[in-house]
Amino acid sequence: MSKIRLGILGGGADSLIGILHRVAANMFDHYEITGGAFDIDFEKSKNFGEKLGLDQDRIYKDIDAMIEAESNLPKDKRIQVVSVLTPNFLHFPMAKQLLENGFHVICEKPLTTTYEEAKILKAIREKTGSIFAVTYTYTGYPMVRQMKKMIAEGVIGKIHKVDIQYYQGWINSLIHDKEKRSNTWRLDPEKSGISCCIGDIGTHAFNMAEFLTGTRIDKVLADLNYLYEDNPMDIDGTVLVRYSDNAKGVIRASQIATGEENNFCVKIYGDKGGLKWEQENPNYLYHLTEDKPLQTLKPGHAYNSDFSLEGTKLPPGHPEGIFDSMGNIYLGIANAIKNHTKFEGAYPDLEEGVRGMMFIEKTVDSHKKGNVWVNLND
Amino acid sequence: MSKIRLGILGGGADSLIGILHRVAANMFDHYEITGGAFDIDFEKSKNFGEKLGLDQDRIYKDIDAMIEAESNLPKDKRIQVVSVLTPNFLHFPMAKQLLENGFHVICEKPLTTTYEEAKILKAIREKTGSIFAVTYTYTGYPMVRQMKKMIAEGVIGKIHKVDIQYYQGWINSLIHDKEKRSNTWRLDPEKSGISCCIGDIGTHAFNMAEFLTGTRIDKVLADLNYLYEDNPMDIDGTVLVRYSDNAKGVIRASQIATGEENNFCVKIYGDKGGLKWEQENPNYLYHLTEDKPLQTLKPGHAYNSDFSLEGTKLPPGHPEGIFDSMGNIYLGIANAIKNHTKFEGAYPDLEEGVRGMMFIEKTVDSHKKGNVWVNLND
Amino acid sequence: MSKIRLGILGGGADSLIGILHRVAANMFDHYEITGGAFDIDFEKSKNFGEKLGLDQDRIYKDIDAMIEAESNLPKDKRIQVVSVLTPNFLHFPMAKQLLENGFHVICEKPLTTTYEEAKILKAIREKTGSIFAVTYTYTGYPMVRQMKKMIAEGVIGKIHKVDIQYYQGWINSLIHDKEKRSNTWRLDPEKSGISCCIGDIGTHAFNMAEFLTGTRIDKVLADLNYLYEDNPMDIDGTVLVRYSDNAKGVIRASQIATGEENNFCVKIYGDKGGLKWEQENPNYLYHLTEDKPLQTLKPGHAYNSDFSLEGTKLPPGHPEGIFDSMGNIYLGIANAIKNHTKFEGAYPDLEEGVRGMMFIEKTVDSHKKGNVWVNLND
Amino acid sequence: MSKIRLGILGGGADSLIGILHRVAANMFDHYEITGGAFDIDFEKSKNFGEKLGLDQDRIYKDIDAMIEAESNLPKDKRIQVVSVLTPNFLHFPMAKQLLENGFHVICEKPLTTTYEEAKILKAIREKTGSIFAVTYTYTGYPMVRQMKKMIAEGVIGKIHKVDIQYYQGWINSLIHDKEKRSNTWRLDPEKSGISCCIGDIGTHAFNMAEFLTGTRIDKVLADLNYLYEDNPMDIDGTVLVRYSDNAKGVIRASQIATGEENNFCVKIYGDKGGLKWEQENPNYLYHLTEDKPLQTLKPGHAYNSDFSLEGTKLPPGHPEGIFDSMGNIYLGIANAIKNHTKFEGAYPDLEEGVRGMMFIEKTVDSHKKGNVWVNLND
Repeated sequence: MSKIRLGILGGGADSLIGILHRVAANMFDHYEITGGAFDIDFEKSKNFGEKLGLDQDRIYKDIDAMIEAESNLPKDKRIQVVSVLTPNFLHFPMAKQLLENGFHVICEKPLTTTYEEAKILKAIREKTGSIFAVTYTYTGYPMVRQMKKMIAEGVIGKIHKVDIQYYQGWINSLIHDKEKRSNTWRLDPEKSGISCCIGDIGTHAFNMAEFLTGTRIDKVLADLNYLYEDNPMDIDGTVLVRYSDNAKGVIRASQIATGEENNFCVKIYGDKGGLKWEQENPNYLYHLTEDKPLQTLKPGHAYNSDFSLEGTKLPPGHPEGIFDSMGNIYLGIANAIKNHTKFEGAYPDLEEGVRGMMFIEKTVDSHKKGNVWVNLND
Repeated sequence: MSKIRLGILGGGADSLIGILHRVAANMFDHYEITGGAFDIDFEKSKNFGEKLGLDQDRIYKDIDAMIEAESNLPKDKRIQVVSVLTPNFLHFPMAKQLLENGFHVICEKPLTTTYEEAKILKAIREKTGSIFAVTYTYTGYPMVRQMKKMIAEGVIGKIHKVDIQYYQGWINSLIHDKEKRSNTWRLDPEKSGISCCIGDIGTHAFNMAEFLTGTRIDKVLADLNYLYEDNPMDIDGTVLVRYSDNAKGVIRASQIATGEENNFCVKIYGDKGGLKWEQENPNYLYHLTEDKPLQTLKPGHAYNSDFSLEGTKLPPGHPEGIFDSMGNIYLGIANAIKNHTKFEGAYPDLEEGVRGMMFIEKTVDSHKKGNVWVNLND
Repeated sequence: MSKIRLGILGGGADSLIGILHRVAANMFDHYEITGGAFDIDFEKSKNFGEKLGLDQDRIYKDIDAMIEAESNLPKDKRIQVVSVLTPNFLHFPMAKQLLENGFHVICEKPLTTTYEEAKILKAIREKTGSIFAVTYTYTGYPMVRQMKKMIAEGVIGKIHKVDIQYYQGWINSLIHDKEKRSNTWRLDPEKSGISCCIGDIGTHAFNMAEFLTGTRIDKVLADLNYLYEDNPMDIDGTVLVRYSDNAKGVIRASQIATGEENNFCVKIYGDKGGLKWEQENPNYLYHLTEDKPLQTLKPGHAYNSDFSLEGTKLPPGHPEGIFDSMGNIYLGIANAIKNHTKFEGAYPDLEEGVRGMMFIEKTVDSHKKGNVWVNLND
Repeated sequence: MSKIRLGILGGGADSLIGILHRVAANMFDHYEITGGAFDIDFEKSKNFGEKLGLDQDRIYKDIDAMIEAESNLPKDKRIQVVSVLTPNFLHFPMAKQLLENGFHVICEKPLTTTYEEAKILKAIREKTGSIFAVTYTYTGYPMVRQMKKMIAEGVIGKIHKVDIQYYQGWINSLIHDKEKRSNTWRLDPEKSGISCCIGDIGTHAFNMAEFLTGTRIDKVLADLNYLYEDNPMDIDGTVLVRYSDNAKGVIRASQIATGEENNFCVKIYGDKGGLKWEQENPNYLYHLTEDKPLQTLKPGHAYNSDFSLEGTKLPPGHPEGIFDSMGNIYLGIANAIKNHTKFEGAYPDLEEGVRGMMFIEKTVDSHKKGNVWVNLND
């Protein structure tokens, strides 16, 4: 069975979102990055595409060139799905063009800059029937998926309270300076739409609130904070949300929660119990009940749902971050092979392996001799 | 600059270690998996190689075939480095053969089954000068690297106490049953060498004890536990270690710490402070001093060393596991594209993106109208 | 210097609030419980007073009897301050009567059942100038005091965001049953005033919001939840609060956060940093900044303010709960002395002390002999 | 039923251990402090006794005077039990004298300075049959008691691994200076017996190891650290302990674990599960099993044993430290009554109570008017 042919728009150079999508695409051996336009500067794009090992003729000048060339290829060579990783205001035109030309789409959030545009995409997709994903990344965590399943199965009963927080502090460092705040694209409605804080992170909280409960929110009442008269974009806000008269909630988002990083926390309570999850420690799902000890669920255990287990790659107790740990070691080795300067300890050398074997033998030796001291290095 | 050509021995089918190495190799766009022998069953190996998108003629029957064919290729096509992911007892012969034929080697731990074999590899490598890495994976974590640097810079002063623990509980489920314990390959010295617990996880603790301090351990005194007379392999042990008369330590390892997963903890104390790190929550490094509040360091911040920052791919506050979260979403999309059955919520659909845009606009609307309720779905 | 003579109204039998106030009064050797009326049943009150070791003639039938008798005593014998621990609706008349008769007052919260009554007490106190404390207990924690001081000293700069949560789940077990909810005094406006959740715990959050910031809240916007039409009292609510246009906050309180105990959390952010504290782990104060590692302050350290240190009785690292641990041991001993049935292990017997001395000597012996096994029990 | 008459030797002035014992004695209303000798300076002792509210003639010059006078009192007036809170080397002679004169004894640890002395006390007690408690305080924590019960009931099955740590860092600040270390009484064998670290805290770990398992340790193998040649006392050590050939353990104690406060942790594993507890967060008991989520038990819940519940004074979710919080507030009030200078916020004044009532009413008002802003201060 062949891999899915994936195109990428944007995400070149050091783009973090680019790395994230490429690693994700490689993770389960389902995708092959086949082509793309990675940068508005065509030269840079070409260099980047080469670094990824792409054929020269699948590295495109822009989306138009890509669509034209790919559409002329036979169906079994053609890019099937395209990841849109460009600046926010380009999401809409690009996604639209891709849909209209028969591609599946993976689009970074926010989907568009206005609700109006979003509805247009929806209408087109209804005709084309394409796959169209918006990468609200957090819903992919194994314990978030487990939480969704437990709620669906009635583990916490009928929900009456939802509390979601997404606190960051990064904008504090520039909001208090008039010069700085007038020069930040995030605070410029032309580039970022009508909202900064709600648009960037409040929307994650909202998506989670509907994803987990499987229920639509009915109405909202918001109090936002702009902090300065001359600042046109919210940087903090509390939103009262109502699913129904008896199921209420609150979404809290901030970019001036100074010192917070990505403190995204979810708490949902029903008449049989509660569930809590925190993005910064994503491997723990807390299940509260009235009469039993607090239970902490972790990924990979048989007690989890298939939906959760499908997303766990390693046995219990390895934080998913171990991929990165191994990735860093491969990076160290690559630097060594390429004769780059390397950090001492960038990867464990043969010498460490030899000492490891010595340790094992000497340790067993100490025990067998009656728990006595044994020298290493003999 | 072209990618490094990587070969793989073993790691086929559902091998977890295989996934881990492939994801790691892809992470920084430095490697291209070029060939390999993934399974002793050649048919299975071929299917697997195809799934990875390899050329048919770079999928080999065995290591001999691979070495012969690759050696005949021009230097700029030839596999440069090989990852050895086979069962432990094959590490030695394969690594030896690879070294002797001019390949760089990445070898899973334990390096060999005896100290003697390890010393042979060391002697060969001294002649060839190849890159040879042993994947003690944990040394790749950003906060472990930061810990090493802080110790090297004297942040905790002269070290006088090292305490390392690696507790698992998995063998408890089979050790108490005579039948089961006699049929486990881990407890068979023929297949696993002379030690189970120390050989598998104690060796990680030992490696960490030397990696972090930059100092060699002088001697050991061990008390191991075999629990049953008929069990030839240790499954638990405490090892007193001595760097010098005034710098002492203890390594504790267990596979009968029932209920533990991979509870690998490191504590190092010197005359100016202490440092602590836990593998199951790898993004936190604790720095203790006598007269200041406890400090908790996290990856990606400017206060970290270059060595640590080089291994961080995302801004602070995203657990490295977010790669997996995104990976799971790409998997969901792949299943949709391939028309496989999918879990509801396996990826966020366009519909979620549309609602997100609605939420943002309605929220700002509520605020601007004076903090009043606004209906969604209009 | 003699102790302060303390009278107590209510708090008899197994009253938890009674135990709490008595232990607190004894803690620093400043008070002597001199008299009181502990129960509406005079017999029970007399027995209880005797148990406390009070003189018979200082155990009173009711507040009237107490005030009359005490007022006739010479000033240096007379009760100086009275703790009002009776049901909520009695707080107002009792506090009023005490103030009017020249006593200092310590009153449990809520102060009264209406704002009107509260203002009356305020007016009287302005004339008498008495000491009048309302026991918002949480402000007495050392780390809460440290937080107040740090904010006052500008450590987190100008405050722009306050987020306080008090979540409990206890009312979930009775709110869903029509019978039960109509028979709960907490849900009866006659007995509990106009509010259940806000009145009982929201008020703690509000007090903390003003205590810590040293600033008054200007206005509120609330969304409460009653869950059932026939329930007249709020059991959950979110309150938007505003200090000023640029300093906003949110108070969240719930009694249907199923499974929560007393999850009272405080987060305050300013332009220089943030501070966080959680009541269920009260010895940790988290200080966040933009460019330094997270700092965790603990009680008793010299880096704390005098205000905080004054309230710490033990060296760092002993949770304040160690008083209770020792208290439990004294209880075990009391039961033994009084020949009550006792739990095995209720207190450490001499035998344990003997073994402790043996352990010390044998351990040193093992070391001195060169790290060898030494038998105990010789 | 009258209170138990308690005498106290030592513990005067600012003695922390004195405060701890007095608060504990008062906690359940079982004891009345009746007399004592609090200081070797009789004047100071008298002042201190007066502060405690004792009769002048029950404040004694020394233990001899106390024993003589009390022995002459009728049995129902006489001190029944005496707490020995004097320096370590006085424990033995005082406890001996008290036993020989018919008193019950509560003795601080370590019981004596030698194992020999301890055995003498044991022999005397066997004749007198007195109550004799040694205050290994930690065994009084509710969750430690719960742990003991669960082990006794077989919840974690047959124990095969015990791991106990008591790490402090305080001696680091003086051990590295030759002058300082030679002038510390803790490091002087004349005053402190043969061991510093093992004698002071290792003994707590040992006691816990036997208390929790209900099983005696058979033998030990120790490696201690003295750090400097001229230091005669251990300040760090690891002790291998053996209950039997298949139940092994390790006790780790240190006073040079720089930056640690009272990091006393207990881990016990059996063939059905594991239990973990940490002294610095004493309200959490962790129960690990192989196939279920981690369970966290907390005090006061019905799922706990009677033995544990007997030692819990408050409903779940109030850390036991809340006694101290209330104690601090009573202290603030005392200072106000006595006209001492006071810290702002030292206790919540009537004003705070008034605002609390206003908050409740205005909040309900906002909700009832349809979630609108309502000003406070009207």
